[in-house]
Amino acid sequence: MTIEQFVAQSSGKWRSMRSGHSLAFQQFEEVLSEVTIKEISKDDSLVIQLLRSSVANKKNLDAISCPFKMEWCAESDWEPDDPSEVSSGSCIIVPLVKNISSGNLIRSVGYAEPEAAISEYSFSNDGTFTLTTNYEQSIAEERIWFVSENVRCRSSVLRTSAGSGVLQTSFASEVRRINA
Amino acid sequence: MTIEQFVAQSSGKWRSMRSGHSLAFQQFEEVLSEVTIKEISKDDSLVIQLLRSSVANKKNLDAISCPFKMEWCAESDWEPDDPSEVSSGSCIIVPLVKNISSGNLIRSVGYAEPEAAISEYSFSNDGTFTLTTNYEQSIAEERIWFVSENVRCRSSVLRTSAGSGVLQTSFASEVRRINA
Repeated sequence: MTIEQFVAQSSGKWRSMRSGHSLAFQQFEEVLSEVTIKEISKDDSLVIQLLRSSVANKKNLDAISCPFKMEWCAESDWEPDDPSEVSSGSCIIVPLVKNISSGNLIRSVGYAEPEAAISEYSFSNDGTFTLTTNYEQSIAEERIWFVSENVRCRSSVLRTSAGSGVLQTSFASEVRRINA
Repeated sequence: MTIEQFVAQSSGKWRSMRSGHSLAFQQFEEVLSEVTIKEISKDDSLVIQLLRSSVANKKNLDAISCPFKMEWCAESDWEPDDPSEVSSGSCIIVPLVKNISSGNLIRSVGYAEPEAAISEYSFSNDGTFTLTTNYEQSIAEERIWFVSENVRCRSSVLRTSAGSGVLQTSFASEVRRINA
């Protein structure tokens, strides 16, 4: 698997079921959401803006490949006071290829914390895409793998950046919406 | 990672948070359980009994390594009529080593279906343990990986054996109980 194949295979509209586990409190979160992934041009103004920001500093911008945009619209049960709370957002992601199986991703919005972030990615020999991001307060490891053309799984583990304490995990099952 | 290291690292009492996703119905399941994993002797009567059963037929029994017993006690919300339903059980698992990173597992109780089953296992280059089992009605793929010494994650994907349809997925976050 290469990053180009991975982005091409991920493109489309996905219906996502996501479970979050808060390990210290033994609490479950359940989120249904729609996720849209779409390749965008290297010349898109949002890509250029992201590459001019400090997070892209000192990176080899010649290595850019297949930037994409991710949008999500979620309905969460995390806040019991407002079960119908809907959260939505979008993110620009720009891969920088190092070699065939690894590189960096510049993200306009982080996974664990909302600022722009830079991640390291790699593919393992079974095709699993692994993404590690160091935030100010935490380290996130995400894994994404395809179980069929139209179903993919996504797990995440969030640790404290100070130690090895695991704070939260999550798992999403994503089914491509046909004709969407 | 070898199967011997994996079983040694898995031994102990784990507090498990498990989420199930029924993809067709978009239903979530949440299960809290306690899982105990314990190495047992090759000469244990339950091991000998399992190796005499038809599921172990035609297998190279010289390749047996580190048999273990898994016990679980779960409290599930799957049955909305009886939210306090508790399910428990145990299983004998006997690894048969093929080479350093792959082999078979003979299980006295299957994951997806209750009869004895034989699985193929392999370790990917990032240490993830992957287990594939063909049942009569379904194919299960399980993945287990350690995120720290005392935290492991476990995912499963259940497909129809007839085609590639994905029926269910699940994800468990397991934390070792210290002093247990």
